[in-house]
Amino acid sequence: MTTTARTPVTVLGLGAMGHALAAAVTGAAHPTTVWNRTPGRAGALVDAGATEARDVRAAVTAAPLVVACLLDHASVHEVLDPVADALAGRTLVNVTTTTPEQSRELAAWAAGHGVTYLDGGIMATPPMIGQPGSSVLYSGSAEAFEAHRAVLDIWGESTYLGDDAGVAALYDLALLAGMYTVFAGFHHGAAMVATAGISATEFADRAVPFLSAMIGHVRTDAAAIDAGDYGGPEQQSLEFSDLGDMVQASVDAGVATDVVGAVQALIRRQIDAGHGTDGFARIYESVRAGGTR
Amino acid sequence: MTTTARTPVTVLGLGAMGHALAAAVTGAAHPTTVWNRTPGRAGALVDAGATEARDVRAAVTAAPLVVACLLDHASVHEVLDPVADALAGRTLVNVTTTTPEQSRELAAWAAGHGVTYLDGGIMATPPMIGQPGSSVLYSGSAEAFEAHRAVLDIWGESTYLGDDAGVAALYDLALLAGMYTVFAGFHHGAAMVATAGISATEFADRAVPFLSAMIGHVRTDAAAIDAGDYGGPEQQSLEFSDLGDMVQASVDAGVATDVVGAVQALIRRQIDAGHGTDGFARIYESVRAGGTR
Repeated sequence: MTTTARTPVTVLGLGAMGHALAAAVTGAAHPTTVWNRTPGRAGALVDAGATEARDVRAAVTAAPLVVACLLDHASVHEVLDPVADALAGRTLVNVTTTTPEQSRELAAWAAGHGVTYLDGGIMATPPMIGQPGSSVLYSGSAEAFEAHRAVLDIWGESTYLGDDAGVAALYDLALLAGMYTVFAGFHHGAAMVATAGISATEFADRAVPFLSAMIGHVRTDAAAIDAGDYGGPEQQSLEFSDLGDMVQASVDAGVATDVVGAVQALIRRQIDAGHGTDGFARIYESVRAGGTR
Repeated sequence: MTTTARTPVTVLGLGAMGHALAAAVTGAAHPTTVWNRTPGRAGALVDAGATEARDVRAAVTAAPLVVACLLDHASVHEVLDPVADALAGRTLVNVTTTTPEQSRELAAWAAGHGVTYLDGGIMATPPMIGQPGSSVLYSGSAEAFEAHRAVLDIWGESTYLGDDAGVAALYDLALLAGMYTVFAGFHHGAAMVATAGISATEFADRAVPFLSAMIGHVRTDAAAIDAGDYGGPEQQSLEFSDLGDMVQASVDAGVATDVVGAVQALIRRQIDAGHGTDGFARIYESVRAGGTR
């Protein structure tokens, strides 16, 4: 039997996601150091074998691989700018949710300080970390991705998208946009049926299988988008998809129309532009055209 | 071997959905009569054995079971008001998408003309009719639902929700709100990654399994909603879910922010009301509180 030395890992930030990432590497027997701006959140991790660092500098110098899972882009600079010298020569894997432009800025900042930078976008909720269905997208340093693959794969399926550090964040935000929108759509429907005394749980029992069955239909839309062809006999027309009834029923039920009103706005812009007989996939043109409500 | 006489069925309206419903009953060897406001859409159905009626009155009098699959509530009255006398004594199954209030109005209209009324909400796209995953919700006459169950079951799983004719439409619109919102979320994400040269099809290959994995998480939200408890250690906080980065990245990419902006508005209203440390499920309170953007 051979023993493979496991890379020491430092995790900065112990919100729900940082905690889950740290718990997974601790559980996989990597020497793990953790730090959080507000102390007192490391108890369970320390019990499991992690070490709580007394400050950021101690945390950063404890491992060659430093994972940042902080609130936002500004937090990353607030935490790391004062210890940039200590980060030099190490690898920073930043899974903090940032915009693509912010990821590129951090990659440039890291390069300027001799830090190897890999940006990560986590496509999972904290309880999913390390479980089937968890996926993490990375972009930036290919060398860092390969060198630390064993750690990265603990959290979920790891995918490398290229050396533009911003692509993982772009893809991440695009998928999260879908996820949060799905959740908001569920909440809207739950609020509608609640007015007839139907519980959210009962609605979920029907909505989850229904939406699961429907979700694959986006592939048809994707093919239409890529072909630039929004007609076709299998396509339900935009006019037929007009959500006027849905918006009205929401108003009748006293439910806020933010989400369905936004979808309706995408549809109306295409109908108003004379494309009412085209398929629903044409709403892509409303999104792509930019602008805000 | 015994032969069961199959109920003759009339389908009014041959849009994509009406055509699919008529094709399914024709395929199940029910004597089928079809009618469409604009002639010339019945060709394939006639080839399969259906009869095209010369006018609405001929269509209505051809069968004890008349299915209306028209554009909207106004269309139902335009088509059926002139032949209400011919509908008397028959069963009208109205699967036209209407608001709950409109369904209740049609049920009252039908009762006034001696017509048995069953309202239906189809939870499927036209190609799914008669296939696994297709589901239709009904409310209104329990007798009609039982008497014509054999026909209804051809189209998909049939569920009866009670004698309030409006409930099927309410549930239908609530589920469709989820579906259209899911689709819009996908389109938003596809438009974002397109700015990095990623095709909609490639995005769908990642988004479909991701969103499928995520969709079940609405059950956690549903439990929180029903319990009225939006805290809990497993819940990602609303502050962490703030979509400012997503909206900014959309603006940076030149993509319209209608949909993500609407979700962000739901989140912000709860944060602004002092609930930022509660879980994401609290956006339900933004929806339930009513109002429009």
